[in-house]
Formats: sequence, structure tokens, C-alpha cells
Amino acid sequence: MHIDVLTLFPEMFHGVMNASILKKAQDKNIFSYDLINFRDYSENKHQKVDDYPYGGGAGMVLTPQPIFDAVDAIKTKRNTKPRIILMCPQGEQFQQTKAEELAKEEHLIFICGHYEGFDERIRHYLATDELSIGDYVLTGGELGAMVVIDSVVRLLPEVLGNKASAPQDSFSTGLLEHPHYTRPANFRGMKVPDILLSGDHQKIETWRKREAVRRTFERRSDLLEKIDLPRDLQVFLAEIKKSVNGKYE
Amino acid sequence: MHIDVLTLFPEMFHGVMNASILKKAQDKNIFSYDLINFRDYSENKHQKVDDYPYGGGAGMVLTPQPIFDAVDAIKTKRNTKPRIILMCPQGEQFQQTKAEELAKEEHLIFICGHYEGFDERIRHYLATDELSIGDYVLTGGELGAMVVIDSVVRLLPEVLGNKASAPQDSFSTGLLEHPHYTRPANFRGMKVPDILLSGDHQKIETWRKREAVRRTFERRSDLLEKIDLPRDLQVFLAEIKKSVNGKYE
Repeated sequence: MHIDVLTLFPEMFHGVMNASILKKAQDKNIFSYDLINFRDYSENKHQKVDDYPYGGGAGMVLTPQPIFDAVDAIKTKRNTKPRIILMCPQGEQFQQTKAEELAKEEHLIFICGHYEGFDERIRHYLATDELSIGDYVLTGGELGAMVVIDSVVRLLPEVLGNKASAPQDSFSTGLLEHPHYTRPANFRGMKVPDILLSGDHQKIETWRKREAVRRTFERRSDLLEKIDLPRDLQVFLAEIKKSVNGKYE
Repeated sequence: MHIDVLTLFPEMFHGVMNASILKKAQDKNIFSYDLINFRDYSENKHQKVDDYPYGGGAGMVLTPQPIFDAVDAIKTKRNTKPRIILMCPQGEQFQQTKAEELAKEEHLIFICGHYEGFDERIRHYLATDELSIGDYVLTGGELGAMVVIDSVVRLLPEVLGNKASAPQDSFSTGLLEHPHYTRPANFRGMKVPDILLSGDHQKIETWRKREAVRRTFERRSDLLEKIDLPRDLQVFLAEIKKSVNGKYE
């Protein structure tokens, strides 16, 4: 997979793009990226990339010309039909299913604004996708692009060393993860649950599944509506719900 | 505000923390940060920070000792009662209201895991908050911490130059933003709506409010349930709904 990122702040990316999994994926030639400062494509003599909004109002707006031209140059160079992803608060909410979808592509282009809005024509005529990583305001699209890139690249074949880790993550199973404990068994008086020290693997497996259900119910009951639990866990969930209702009745 | 970040990958942060708004906030002495590699606090002779999970299973788990000791050292040094924020998929969903809440604090500590789960005692006895930035799987908590830091620091007084920009952002008004256009009026045949070129400021204002409602309805109708629209926009919304239903009836 190749990823091009259009940004006015390329220097923000280096630390993230060259550490951990993203670095490993590059070392294995599974993933490559370029950072393109679209200011370099501005036809304005002062290399301006923004202008006042039509109709007045505060703030500036990114003009279409540098961004359209930068995308055209990339498409000509690579001769691909890339997904063109605009990072913006008005976009579709990014979720794991979208990461899985994007991981099947060969070429992605990310467009990051900063401080300012995009001219609507970029959104309407150029972007194939508009993504938002959450309901909060960020200074620019750069962090959003890094979040999407990290979540997508780790799904590419052969990137994660331990193939078992990907499917067990939270959101992949539909449940939040069960609690984890490691040594020491007693840390400053805080103890590991006895069952995990019992050596009874079947009981431990049951405990973990139940605790995953409990945690999901307590923290993200919305997720439970989207999955089909096996019968025994449905019974357990009903018991939890009953005991919770009991508390308040 | 001071922020300490506990991470095994401090080098990931430099690009983001020293650009744009975060740099300006430091230059104005509104915000400072330290990156703490909690491996430095490991009492293990090989500086290990993780261990096998009790009860077996794939993956490693971050042990409590280095993280508890690193937080103790920070609290002793600064003599504060910081919010201690664990970045994890099981956490509360981070939203703009949480950013506003955290922006009132003087000292935040972020704990970032990487690849691995946290020993449950870190979650239960040390963290004051657990945050998730969205329903997708990332390689570590670092990008999440940067997202939260960016969204919080930009809300600190005097950080944003143009004080008008903060409240008008998407999610601050409860509506997505209306479309923006800037020059040229005709770009490769793609035109700016006539009304924005009309010079009639009252009509433009009405158009913008309506387009914000329309966009929110089309893309994020869930947001409309949370806000009280003025009477005229309620009427407009009813008209949109009617015309949409008409299409499918």
C-alpha cells in the first residue's frame, strides 16, 4: 500500500510514521508514504493556499487550486485510482469496519486542512471519502490522518508479528476486552483474582468471557446490541442486568 | 497547564507537540509538557515493563510497578493532584464536552500502552479517567493522547489567536458547519452558489444556517436530537424531512 498525505505541516508526521508498526511495515516493504505540502502547488505568487470566504465571516478557507493540482500530479505519477480521503469534522465517523475496508486498497490519498475550512468543491468533486475520527475539535486533519493510517496499516497482511493479536482486540470481537493481570500476584496489597492463579483453564476461559460481557455492559452497552452472544453468555448478561436493576429498585 | 505523558515511544510525540497551536501555546507559556519513558522506572534488571498474563493466553501485559512508580515520582516532584488519564479502547468515549472539562485542570498525566494490555490494577487503582478516542483499534495509546492534548490545549485561554474561531467549530454549536466557498467563483467549471456572491448579508446568513441544518440532518441526524433549534430552523428541518420522505414514498 502507498499513502500520500497532503498537508501544510509535514513535519508533524515524522515521529509517528517512523516508529513502531508503521516503521516495521516500511522495513518489510508492505507500506510506503509521501508527505506533500500542497503549498508547493499554489499558483499564487505568494504561495497562498487560502482566501476569504464568499459571503463574509471569520476565518479563511482553503482554495481548490493547490489541492486539485496536487492530487492530479499524484494520480499522473502513480497511474492509480486512489481513494481520496478528506479529514473533516463533517465526515463519516471512522470505525473499525472502515479501517478494514481501506486496508483492501492499494493507494490512499489523505487531505488535511489546518485551522480552516475547505472550499466545498474539494469536498464535493475531489474527495471520495470524508472521515471524522470523533466528535471533538482538533486543530487540523493531521492527527486524524495519522490515526486512520495507523489503524489501516496494522491490518495489512504480515504487518503484525503475532497474527493472533489482531482479531482479539476490542472492537474486533464486538466486546470490550476482559481484564488482564500479570505479576506480581500482590502489588502493594492489590491482588490478582484467585481464579487466574487456579490453573483451571476452562474456568479461566469462562471468567474471561463473562468479564468481557460485564465490562461491555457497564461501559458500552450500545455495543451489545450489535452482536449475537452465545446462549451461556446471554444467560450471564441477563443475570447482570437483573442484579443491577435490583440495586435501584 | 502542565502535561506529563508516560510512554515507551517518546519519539513519536516531538513532531506533533512542537508544531502549530501546541508550539504557540508553549511559546506563550500557557502549556508545557514532559515525555516520560516509564521503562526508566522499571526495577527489573533487564528494564522489562511487561510480563505474561496470569491465566495464560496470547500477548503480554504491562506490569504495575514501573507505571505506579513513574506516577508517584511526578506527583512528588510537582506536588499536585493531577487527573491521571489512561488511554484505552475500553475507556469512556472522548468528546468535546470532556475536552472542555479537562481544559479546566492544571495538571494532566497521560498513560499510553503500546501493543499490550494494562494490568487491571493500573486501571482500577491509579487512573482517574479512562479515555478512548473512537471505535477503532490503534497500535498504542500515543496517538490518542496527542488527539486529547491537541483538543484540550486549543481551548486554554489565549491560545487561539482569533477568539471567534473556537465557538463556531463543528460540535461546539451542536451542528455541523455550513459549506464554505472562496475564490475563484468558477474553478474548472465548478461554481460558487449565486447567493454567496449576492452581497445580501441577511440572505447569506439564513442560507448558512439552513445549510448547516441540512448537512447535519443528512450526515449526523443523531446530533439534531441533542439541540434546541430556533423556530425558523425547525420549520426548515421539517421541510427537508418532508421532501426526503416524498422521494421514497
